[in-house]
Amino acid sequence: MEKDKNCVFCKIIDGEIPAYKIFEDENVLAFLDISQVTKGHTLVVSKKHYDNFLSTPKEIVHKVMDVAQRIGQVQVEFLGAKGVNILTNCYPAAGQTVMHFHVHVIPRYDQNDNFILEMKTKDDSKLNLPVLAKQIKKELK
Amino acid sequence: MEKDKNCVFCKIIDGEIPAYKIFEDENVLAFLDISQVTKGHTLVVSKKHYDNFLSTPKEIVHKVMDVAQRIGQVQVEFLGAKGVNILTNCYPAAGQTVMHFHVHVIPRYDQNDNFILEMKTKDDSKLNLPVLAKQIKKELK
Repeated sequence: MEKDKNCVFCKIIDGEIPAYKIFEDENVLAFLDISQVTKGHTLVVSKKHYDNFLSTPKEIVHKVMDVAQRIGQVQVEFLGAKGVNILTNCYPAAGQTVMHFHVHVIPRYDQNDNFILEMKTKDDSKLNLPVLAKQIKKELK
Repeated sequence: MEKDKNCVFCKIIDGEIPAYKIFEDENVLAFLDISQVTKGHTLVVSKKHYDNFLSTPKEIVHKVMDVAQRIGQVQVEFLGAKGVNILTNCYPAAGQTVMHFHVHVIPRYDQNDNFILEMKTKDDSKLNLPVLAKQIKKELK
């Protein structure tokens, strides 16, 4: 759908809710996340309402990623970031809180900051990787 | 550069190191992360060597994201994932460990799993958001 009247990002896009906008074109809007995890933490969103990355048309994903890339470059070149995380969460089980496709661009200055990411390896004694790979490969066709 | 002879992902692409591959075309390879954070955790990489998302040509980013999207959809539709995180880390300060552009596609079945992401809001009393927004906006032009 074009707009969801209950969606906070649609309201920001429409100007009903204010935001610190840093980029806007026909398809994409970027603004500072009001909850700054690190200085310059930015959200890049599609102007049309799509629930998440998985349900967004490819050409819109491309346009959003192009802007995310440029903002990440600026964070490194001009804000002094030493690294950048690019993250998009799909569905609440993955931590998505606003159901409108958005990409976090999170500059990193210090590993001991407010962005805490731990990726522990699962006990894989119960995973049969060759079978799992075959299963996914088949569904991708 | 096309290949980096010390890069583990270039070696996987060349077949020197084995991997559980699930998708391959001219530009993109996807394989199960050998450190499975959750069941089906996949890496999608460009076949040419680029250091990270920020230094990868846009058209290659698009192709990698298209494959990441399709794999995320399969994780939901066929593996029973309830959510998916799409993540790419740029530079060691952001947790990048292999310096070859790769996107993590991480299916989520349970919030109490091995993927732990905390995004705490920074004490923003020291952040001047209007000034910060203007600064980034200016550099984006």
